[in-house]
Amino acid sequence: MIHIYNTLTRKKEEFIPLEEGKVKIYFCGLTVQDRPHIGHFRAFITGDILKRYFEYSGFDVTLIMNFTDIDDKLIKKQNETGEDYRRIARRIIDEFFDNADKLNIKRADFYPEATKHIQEIQEFVSRLIKKGIAYVSGNDVYYDVSKFKGYGKLSGKKIDELRVGARVEPDENKRNPVDFVVWKGAKPEEPWWESPWGRGRPGWHIECSAMSIHYLGETFDIHGGGADLIFPHHENEIAQSEGATGKPFARYWVHNGRLNLKGEKMSKSIGNVVLISDILKTYKPDVVKLYILSTHYRSPLDYYEERIKEQEGGYERLNQILFLLSQTKGKGGKVNKEIIDKFKEAMDDDFNTPKALSVIYTYTKDIFETIKRNPDKKLILSAKETLKEMLSVLGLFESVEEDHIKHDEELIELLLKLRSNLREKNLYELSDKIRNGLKNLDIEIEDTPEGSRWKRL
Amino acid sequence: MIHIYNTLTRKKEEFIPLEEGKVKIYFCGLTVQDRPHIGHFRAFITGDILKRYFEYSGFDVTLIMNFTDIDDKLIKKQNETGEDYRRIARRIIDEFFDNADKLNIKRADFYPEATKHIQEIQEFVSRLIKKGIAYVSGNDVYYDVSKFKGYGKLSGKKIDELRVGARVEPDENKRNPVDFVVWKGAKPEEPWWESPWGRGRPGWHIECSAMSIHYLGETFDIHGGGADLIFPHHENEIAQSEGATGKPFARYWVHNGRLNLKGEKMSKSIGNVVLISDILKTYKPDVVKLYILSTHYRSPLDYYEERIKEQEGGYERLNQILFLLSQTKGKGGKVNKEIIDKFKEAMDDDFNTPKALSVIYTYTKDIFETIKRNPDKKLILSAKETLKEMLSVLGLFESVEEDHIKHDEELIELLLKLRSNLREKNLYELSDKIRNGLKNLDIEIEDTPEGSRWKRL
Repeated sequence: MIHIYNTLTRKKEEFIPLEEGKVKIYFCGLTVQDRPHIGHFRAFITGDILKRYFEYSGFDVTLIMNFTDIDDKLIKKQNETGEDYRRIARRIIDEFFDNADKLNIKRADFYPEATKHIQEIQEFVSRLIKKGIAYVSGNDVYYDVSKFKGYGKLSGKKIDELRVGARVEPDENKRNPVDFVVWKGAKPEEPWWESPWGRGRPGWHIECSAMSIHYLGETFDIHGGGADLIFPHHENEIAQSEGATGKPFARYWVHNGRLNLKGEKMSKSIGNVVLISDILKTYKPDVVKLYILSTHYRSPLDYYEERIKEQEGGYERLNQILFLLSQTKGKGGKVNKEIIDKFKEAMDDDFNTPKALSVIYTYTKDIFETIKRNPDKKLILSAKETLKEMLSVLGLFESVEEDHIKHDEELIELLLKLRSNLREKNLYELSDKIRNGLKNLDIEIEDTPEGSRWKRL
Repeated sequence: MIHIYNTLTRKKEEFIPLEEGKVKIYFCGLTVQDRPHIGHFRAFITGDILKRYFEYSGFDVTLIMNFTDIDDKLIKKQNETGEDYRRIARRIIDEFFDNADKLNIKRADFYPEATKHIQEIQEFVSRLIKKGIAYVSGNDVYYDVSKFKGYGKLSGKKIDELRVGARVEPDENKRNPVDFVVWKGAKPEEPWWESPWGRGRPGWHIECSAMSIHYLGETFDIHGGGADLIFPHHENEIAQSEGATGKPFARYWVHNGRLNLKGEKMSKSIGNVVLISDILKTYKPDVVKLYILSTHYRSPLDYYEERIKEQEGGYERLNQILFLLSQTKGKGGKVNKEIIDKFKEAMDDDFNTPKALSVIYTYTKDIFETIKRNPDKKLILSAKETLKEMLSVLGLFESVEEDHIKHDEELIELLLKLRSNLREKNLYELSDKIRNGLKNLDIEIEDTPEGSRWKRL
């Protein structure tokens, strides 16, 4: 039984799907005006863990993750750089996928883009206006917060308190400072779509209501995203969606904790951004994933590069044990049920990946000791299967590229071992053939007092 | 000097760019309702050759290639399958990129999608209406062919003759049977965008006029695509674009010949489609490219699978000579200017790839004979550079994946050679270490009268 902490009820709840055996998840994706940073990817890795663990637990998962590809910042960027906003968006989407693939994040079922769903968004706005919970004012359409009784139920905020702190921009025509825009009239030189309310573009919140309902239905299982989206984004999504349909919107709300840099939220406007592309130039994808997964997704996480570096030790340990186990060939290993149960217990408890990782680390330590004493084939094959199963749920150690490199490396190691055998037997002519043969492949052997090493030239 | 056959003038012309040192190309891309077949990819490989050869010749190239992601067929498919048309489109776009990457087709600078350019399309339609060359009729907007004097200049067709054969659908409200739709009113249950002419969607031809001009300017250098697009698509593009701007549209029109299967155009509606994904399951990407490039892009090409298979011989010859040359390490080889000049002469003559390939094959034959007699290092390094330069212009033998596999194979060959040395010296203990070591890596050695072979298990 999977238990999830539900932001809406503020407690851990047993997960019961709307439809047996199926989970429908909408996860807030990237706003594609700035290059993705490690904070964004904390959310996407969280979404991936949900998808993977539900699938592992036998559910048929549908995961929808949006791209917000039109907003004020993107328009500003177009005006500043002269680059078409659709090209900026595409470049950043490509960078997202490039990094997501490197990090072995499974593809969502679909990534709807806001600008491709103008029809659904306009239909949604019309529905709100018809129900009297949105109103046209000037060139804009606003949501009338006073008309939705449940407003604040996700974030715990009270309308009256919000009203005190709310700021109204000079060009806004709200009835009430807490109202928010669902359709925004276009200023000169801004991109537009024709609409019954004049030329304009969607507000930010409306796209997620329109697209999640379009792809998952009026009520679906899980809505996820970063904790900084709880207010106002997700609060407003609930207001829009439940206001329009009269039905419950998402049943479980899952939010990953913030990733801070020096105590502040990582964000372009503050200027404390560490790009995921830059991190992956220095660290292996699995090291970065171990870093993210070794903290529970709901806990805030302070970013220090040293903490990524620290994960290299764990990575090496896992890599070594996997290599050691791979030396024993054969199939049909039976998973260790006891270990898998411990792993599942951790994951069932609100996707507790740090605990799941500690099950893995403890297990690798135990099997290493056992195998050292008794290299039993059945035991080794079982350990191989057990580890593989757990690691694949976390999306670790599955990279194809690494497989390639490892294969290369194993062949080179075999040649080196052979060379040392030949040298022991004083067969220098042959041992030199290995040295020269490798040199032709741009691989250099270095003899040291501790033995031979090799490097690529 | 590059010479291009210009469909517009019906002759081969010296290419003179609009702006010195720059080439702006718009190439008609995929209509994303059906999975791409080898005929589509003949066009994309042609576009890639243009891009690569212009870049090689020192031009700064901008290549824009569209995706038509809304049309009647896509809507029909949505209605038949229940799958959202944007998901169908995305799936097919992904398949396009997957295959394009395998075939080492360079990415265009941008791939605009029609549904993301509704604003530019509507602005274009308005411009035509204002000029009196398009008219609103019912829920549609039509282009008035009689208002554009140059109509037929690309295809050589005469309006009067077209009028005789033209068919008007019962739901069309044309003034004249040869007029064509630029904005199509939406029927119930069809996707729509709001417009000054009611809810609807763009006609097919208008997107290419609007997007090419948006990204490349009102006049640009080259417009390309398959020969089956000359009429009506490109003819109508010219009418729309020159009608609206009063300026020449594309200066050179480049069309690749059809790819036929059993004498008929390969097309989904005829049912004689060979998917590129299926071909690439059987044949190496470079073999498929050799097949396409060994016929001039303008000639019609009859598809027989045997003709792809025949290219495997040429592929092997090139692969072997490259391997042979790679055995000699070193840098600083000087290209053979005489050969490169011959290669350039072929390519300058309207991108004559079959002739360019024959320069390459003749050259590889010559250098093999020369090197056999005189394995001079300088000569070998020069041959390596010369071949590499020519092959890279054609986008051949650049695959990273193959590099990986080749590297593996070279290491295994080294081990095999060593093993036979050990066996000659009766050092069976060591030679068995190699056999067992490889076996652990799932590689099996087989001893035959002709020597040892290996295979992956």
